[in-house]
Amino acid sequence: MRLSRFPLATTKETPSDAEIISHQLMLRAGFIRKLGAGLYTWLPIGLRVLKKVENIVREEMDRAGALEVLMPTIQPGELWKESGRWDVMGYEMLRFKDRHKNDFCYAPTAEEVITFHVRQDIRSYRQLPINYYQIQTKFRDERRPRFGLMRGREFLMKDAYSFHMDAEDLSREYYNMREAYIRVFTRVGAAFRAVKADSGNIGGALSEEFHILANSGEDLLAVAEGGTYAANVEAAECKPTGKRAAASAALEKVSTPGQKTCDQVSKFLNVPLTGKVKLLVVHAAEGQPHALIGIALRGDHQLNEVKASKHPKVKSPFKMATPEEVQAAFGCETGYLGPIKCPIPVIADHAAFEVADFVCGANENDHHLKGANWGRDAEEPETADLRAIVEGDASPDGVGVIKFYRGIEGGHVFQLGKKYSKAMNLTVLDEKGQAVTPEMGCYGIGVSRLVAAVLEQSNDAGGMIWPDAIAPFRVIVCPIGMDKSEAVKAAAEKLYADLNAAGIETALDDRGARPGSMFADADLIGIPHRVVIGDKSLATAQFEYKSRKAEKAEMIPASLEAVLEKLRG
Amino acid sequence: MRLSRFPLATTKETPSDAEIISHQLMLRAGFIRKLGAGLYTWLPIGLRVLKKVENIVREEMDRAGALEVLMPTIQPGELWKESGRWDVMGYEMLRFKDRHKNDFCYAPTAEEVITFHVRQDIRSYRQLPINYYQIQTKFRDERRPRFGLMRGREFLMKDAYSFHMDAEDLSREYYNMREAYIRVFTRVGAAFRAVKADSGNIGGALSEEFHILANSGEDLLAVAEGGTYAANVEAAECKPTGKRAAASAALEKVSTPGQKTCDQVSKFLNVPLTGKVKLLVVHAAEGQPHALIGIALRGDHQLNEVKASKHPKVKSPFKMATPEEVQAAFGCETGYLGPIKCPIPVIADHAAFEVADFVCGANENDHHLKGANWGRDAEEPETADLRAIVEGDASPDGVGVIKFYRGIEGGHVFQLGKKYSKAMNLTVLDEKGQAVTPEMGCYGIGVSRLVAAVLEQSNDAGGMIWPDAIAPFRVIVCPIGMDKSEAVKAAAEKLYADLNAAGIETALDDRGARPGSMFADADLIGIPHRVVIGDKSLATAQFEYKSRKAEKAEMIPASLEAVLEKLRG
Repeated sequence: MRLSRFPLATTKETPSDAEIISHQLMLRAGFIRKLGAGLYTWLPIGLRVLKKVENIVREEMDRAGALEVLMPTIQPGELWKESGRWDVMGYEMLRFKDRHKNDFCYAPTAEEVITFHVRQDIRSYRQLPINYYQIQTKFRDERRPRFGLMRGREFLMKDAYSFHMDAEDLSREYYNMREAYIRVFTRVGAAFRAVKADSGNIGGALSEEFHILANSGEDLLAVAEGGTYAANVEAAECKPTGKRAAASAALEKVSTPGQKTCDQVSKFLNVPLTGKVKLLVVHAAEGQPHALIGIALRGDHQLNEVKASKHPKVKSPFKMATPEEVQAAFGCETGYLGPIKCPIPVIADHAAFEVADFVCGANENDHHLKGANWGRDAEEPETADLRAIVEGDASPDGVGVIKFYRGIEGGHVFQLGKKYSKAMNLTVLDEKGQAVTPEMGCYGIGVSRLVAAVLEQSNDAGGMIWPDAIAPFRVIVCPIGMDKSEAVKAAAEKLYADLNAAGIETALDDRGARPGSMFADADLIGIPHRVVIGDKSLATAQFEYKSRKAEKAEMIPASLEAVLEKLRG
Repeated sequence: MRLSRFPLATTKETPSDAEIISHQLMLRAGFIRKLGAGLYTWLPIGLRVLKKVENIVREEMDRAGALEVLMPTIQPGELWKESGRWDVMGYEMLRFKDRHKNDFCYAPTAEEVITFHVRQDIRSYRQLPINYYQIQTKFRDERRPRFGLMRGREFLMKDAYSFHMDAEDLSREYYNMREAYIRVFTRVGAAFRAVKADSGNIGGALSEEFHILANSGEDLLAVAEGGTYAANVEAAECKPTGKRAAASAALEKVSTPGQKTCDQVSKFLNVPLTGKVKLLVVHAAEGQPHALIGIALRGDHQLNEVKASKHPKVKSPFKMATPEEVQAAFGCETGYLGPIKCPIPVIADHAAFEVADFVCGANENDHHLKGANWGRDAEEPETADLRAIVEGDASPDGVGVIKFYRGIEGGHVFQLGKKYSKAMNLTVLDEKGQAVTPEMGCYGIGVSRLVAAVLEQSNDAGGMIWPDAIAPFRVIVCPIGMDKSEAVKAAAEKLYADLNAAGIETALDDRGARPGSMFADADLIGIPHRVVIGDKSLATAQFEYKSRKAEKAEMIPASLEAVLEKLRG
């Protein structure tokens, strides 16, 4: 491509509303333009990168045996009512009525639609397994769109859905997709990590996220140093140690006027936070004997709301009791609650269960208990994994110690099980003619987000640094004084033509810009390989070559072969 | 592709709700599935055709120098308010509010959005001309979606927008795009015709539509037999002959009780329809001295509402007067109106102006006039081209006679002029540093519609007949008894592998189906070339080859080269 015919809209200023580097660079380099909150237009140079990522995703999905389809972006509300998700999805799902006042939504995902189609066309076990994918625009009406493409409202997503006769075959395809994802993330040049994940409202059992590691990432990952365990902090398990010291202190009520937080009580009574047990009061699931239920946590731990929401006795989605509800049930303020003589049932997190002689609220204003012990002062409680993992914890698989990293979720693989096939009455006949409800998997990649995520990892003060596989152009040819020197013009045109003929996507900066401005643009847009041609270098039959990643340029013979040699790395 | 891994969802039944052949065949052959009214999912085999058409469009747009971008499907209502179209677009534009109660719409087109971006990034004449295009999903909330992809609600469209310093450069690009369109429509294998068109509410002056000729087409085209003129009937001009006979009859009022229509009056008074002048009463444009205005047409002609709407004295959009309004203005019913002693101003269509001694309503119930003449009995009226063209008319360019054809609009090129650049305050600086309002062009192709339109032209009783360039596969290899004969299996696998290696997209029917069923499927999905391999043909070292278009199969040598020879045609 000749840059004289290819508009580069680069700027030196960093846009004031762009908070993260990928967003800043994509605006500065003219890759994208903002149309509205969370809405971006891809300009020609940016679209080249998006298309390359899209093609890599397509190639790997095809290679893995998935079949491409294209579903509408607009979906009938009826199908979401069938699956039961119409009332569960929040404001992020954009809903509207068409001119005939029927309910529709802009697809945030397509489990319902693909299940609807499979219900029509797939009737026999002979037609399974099958895995359909599409690369299609999605919309999520984020409350606060931010970070450019990272958390936009409209975005390009690859979503795949597989159907199976049994859980074993689902598991096989799950790992097949997982392998395909590893190939995709490797090919786009990302440093990534597959981590155990929570399935959210998509449903299902096993799921993993593919995270691009970057400090700007919105997700916190728990990774075992010295081990292989890795999980989104949301989903990271905390195992019991199975140890608890015997009770040694006597139970004693002490006055703690105005000391409501664990920190305050810890200092006031001079006990470590690890010796304190706090009680959170939350709404109980329907059908439980009490409307409220207590969760006991160690003083230094935080509740993991995802785990709490999944506990069968806890209301889902998770909801804290109000101070008024606490007052009515306990007769005291929330700062003085504890599991001893507790008026509601208590579930103890494993770590809270393993503390002896603990301090806790006395369920009476301005008072706490010291020397409290499970079993002796209160019934041995039901226990569960309810806390958030912390750095320094032992890895749940026993190997290594947990350290936190930040990640950008670029992909997600799920074993959905029968959630949608059951809700939408999808059955197929097995070998014996029996109707079977198929197992489902689903597999997503945020294609447009992946572009930004790779960029978060791959940039420097000069701008973008694209991996060869997804660069807008692999090579940029920069002639010095092309308008004055016939020799420079001829050499640049020849190299440009030869590289393109060799299948190397190449840009020729024929805009007549000065060297400094040419080089700054080439760096900003992140072209991996730069070849400078001037009268001076041609005098010694040389080109100046510079890798975008290298500190310095070097002289190479003035030949196509010498440039190709550099591209081979 | 092995058909055992590629689900064909073919059926023998013609779906009851599919009215036209392309819609029937695409459902029967499993190319698309209906998700809701005007919403279709592309299944794997159909998507292959859509992608091929999309790629041809992309290649030709790139070749023509246009630059690909990708704009969001969701657009802020603000921009449509800026251009003035928010209130003009009807229910076909899907509007909604986001969670923050701001106005948005699903893009039916993108003049506003591209003008918004160009206003930000283009400041100098040096950056023009430029032509941006995208291939992106559009939505139009049709009142009655029908004919499958032909008039769906969600569809894939290529839309391009060019910007120019002056009208001359716009004209140059318009013809550049027109040439690109001719290449696109030729490459996809369509029999098409470029015709003069009305610009509708997109605005602008010169515009042409590209129509695929088919009896199921919704548009009527006026084409000059023996000439080159072609226009959408909506836009076809009718030129005056400049001749009118002298008045020879005396004006006479006759009683015509109950004779209200032209047909009735013509029979009752025994005069041909061509000797009758009728008067339509419509609302006048704002600022006209009368609220109503009369349009005189020859008795055998119909009003062209598009022409009427564009007349400066007529209200736009065109609106007929009600019987009450006519009664108030004329003191009689609508069946007895005429241009003689008319209480409101009259514009005569050229053909009505050229009748002498005509019959018309007397502006009095149950009475008509005979022997009426312009000039003598009424002032010579203002004349204009207001009627619909009819078959048998002379071509407006004087060469040939008009005949009607039906067409499916597949593309449209417009010279928009300054409509959007002016409304949205887009200016760029010219060589002298003066702010200039750029000229705009816009150019659309209905990519998904084009698939259906080609199919309307290209099918037979057996099913689809795809042109090679957009066929889902070019060749299908059908082995007979592959499970029983090692020789057949080996020959089929080898030919399949060799063809794919030669870059020929080939399907292998390895489903183990019986020959009749295999051939029926191959015909239905319209693969242009079929090669049958069986023990019988292999015994004489032959393959059976059949072109999808041919009546009969023929024997060819059992070699790759012989098959390639057939593909070369």
